Amino acid sequence: MDYEEPKFFQVMQYAAEADGDVIDMVSGNPDWGPPAALREALSAYADLESDAFQYPPSDGLRELRETIARRRGVDANQVVITVGTGEANYLAMARAFERDAGDEAILLDPVYPYYPGKVELLGGTPRIVPTERDGGIDLDAIRSAMSDETALVVLNTPNNPTGAVYDPAAVEAVIEAAERHDALVVADEVYREFDYAGEFESALAVDSPNRIVTDGFSKSLAITGFRVGYGVFPAEHADAARTRHMLVNVASPRPSQYAVLHALEGMDPAYQEAARERMQKRIAAFTDALEAAGAEYTTPEGGFYVLARFEGYPGTTANVERLIDEIGVAGMPGDTFGTTRTDWIRFALVTPRVEEAAERLAERFV
Amino acid sequence: MDYEEPKFFQVMQYAAEADGDVIDMVSGNPDWGPPAALREALSAYADLESDAFQYPPSDGLRELRETIARRRGVDANQVVITVGTGEANYLAMARAFERDAGDEAILLDPVYPYYPGKVELLGGTPRIVPTERDGGIDLDAIRSAMSDETALVVLNTPNNPTGAVYDPAAVEAVIEAAERHDALVVADEVYREFDYAGEFESALAVDSPNRIVTDGFSKSLAITGFRVGYGVFPAEHADAARTRHMLVNVASPRPSQYAVLHALEGMDPAYQEAARERMQKRIAAFTDALEAAGAEYTTPEGGFYVLARFEGYPGTTANVERLIDEIGVAGMPGDTFGTTRTDWIRFALVTPRVEEAAERLAERFV
Repeated sequence: MDYEEPKFFQVMQYAAEADGDVIDMVSGNPDWGPPAALREALSAYADLESDAFQYPPSDGLRELRETIARRRGVDANQVVITVGTGEANYLAMARAFERDAGDEAILLDPVYPYYPGKVELLGGTPRIVPTERDGGIDLDAIRSAMSDETALVVLNTPNNPTGAVYDPAAVEAVIEAAERHDALVVADEVYREFDYAGEFESALAVDSPNRIVTDGFSKSLAITGFRVGYGVFPAEHADAARTRHMLVNVASPRPSQYAVLHALEGMDPAYQEAARERMQKRIAAFTDALEAAGAEYTTPEGGFYVLARFEGYPGTTANVERLIDEIGVAGMPGDTFGTTRTDWIRFALVTPRVEEAAERLAERFV
Repeated sequence: MDYEEPKFFQVMQYAAEADGDVIDMVSGNPDWGPPAALREALSAYADLESDAFQYPPSDGLRELRETIARRRGVDANQVVITVGTGEANYLAMARAFERDAGDEAILLDPVYPYYPGKVELLGGTPRIVPTERDGGIDLDAIRSAMSDETALVVLNTPNNPTGAVYDPAAVEAVIEAAERHDALVVADEVYREFDYAGEFESALAVDSPNRIVTDGFSKSLAITGFRVGYGVFPAEHADAARTRHMLVNVASPRPSQYAVLHALEGMDPAYQEAARERMQKRIAAFTDALEAAGAEYTTPEGGFYVLARFEGYPGTTANVERLIDEIGVAGMPGDTFGTTRTDWIRFALVTPRVEEAAERLAERFV
């Protein structure tokens, strides 16, 4: 296994080294900062007795697991606190493959590039299935790709990069199909707080021993560097996830867990609503300008990202780097996400300068 | 793979639920607290701009990698910051097995129980080789256990639980033997700051593409809950470790990394010397009392642990729990560590009440 620097690091690096003023819309790092209660909690933690600096329980601080369980309507025994949603996905996928239930993983194209990377790390074979043109689930395509070789189906809703929020009935149908093929469905819901039409429904609503839900606080509390996520595992898979978590990482970082716990308890209830509204305004401003420029674009139902396609300007790395040099706007090449969006460029709307970026793009492509 | 709660969680739980006053000597959590500079740094971090709360580089904050590289005399490109020494060991062991160079791992008995657990998680086969009676490396035993099936040898010096500090010439000989068999040697040096005779020498002194060194700040800065460790990888293995780290955890926690970096830069230089001296006083007090009680015991050359053997009282879980009930002293059963120390009980000297514990033991067994 060779180290392939993810394309977004390469583009971020290029943007950072570029001359002139570059608006960074590459990576999904929230720019609006965490709630005040999170900063206060971390600061309070720094003054605690020294035993608060020692190992937390391997599967997470009990109060944090209970808080999450209450909010998500599950039993706390099902919740394992992980090093971000990334580790939760890794544990869930590992569980799918270690059951001797096949070695294929169905991933939806466009695909978040860590998913095939994790599947291959775990010895599985990615099988990429296209979504509908709007990014929604193509149930027939998934069903016909499934066989007894299918160990895993990964769903991500709200979706990165398409912005689609999956139809709950389609999610349920995928889980039912997975049950028939003894496959596990991992639903990565890390963008669930960014659901603009209010139509998102968690896969937790589907009661199934084949369904694992992953989530984290990187996006919802604007702390991608803290590394606090969790998995909700059916009873028969929770202990295997705990074991792997313990053997890989021992425990998740305690200062981060403490800060998240107290942020959830003490934060201004308007914080997340404000983040959603901020994002909706940015989406409107950005897509209005793309419309004016005559570009094709997606209007996300959820998440942070807009995909745009400019006539005669496919979303290659070379073209993305040219945009950085020419107009100082950095996006992500569409070919990062599989084969179906290679003409497109993804823009993460995590900068207050969204409108300015849109104007630069409009001027360049009008 | 079933979840086996590690024996020390079980004993800790038993001790926590026991009636009466229990002196906890089960787990290796330092009781003396982190340096003041670490608390100050964490508190300062809480007030940083919001971009300091976002993803650090996947392989760690550059300044932290450079600081570690300078202190350990290696190139910063060889250093990958991990979620504690635990993840560093996991990455190093994974690298050993993914090279198609055999699937056996040589582990030394007594063995730290996470090592065989990680080996089995990674699909390898543990091959347990006894150490010398004093815990030192038995070079002949290791050499005769090695074959072309050997992918990995794990060394831990200063050792948990024996307290042995390995002879540098023996470590070098193990690495040479590993080169001949295309195996990797992982040297876990997490207790290296607790070297009482000054005779510890890092495996970094042996220049070999088959040698990986792991370390962390859990013990040396008294922050087992922060999860900051690192691996020093030979050039040909560093990128594979980076890839796996990225795919499993994305990055290590940034608040923890920031606090460690500024603690290393700003802490009182006497902090670690004071920790060593404190531990040496505890060892003297504890072993004096064991001597008075007529028990057999080890005098550690390094690390946190004393092994004791009481006539007619083998180190079973039942006997350890009986000591908790009868005299309020909690140790760790010797059978946690393989087959060669089942008569013994391990005591972690990470409580200011070491002398009192020793008196209780002396009174019980005299």
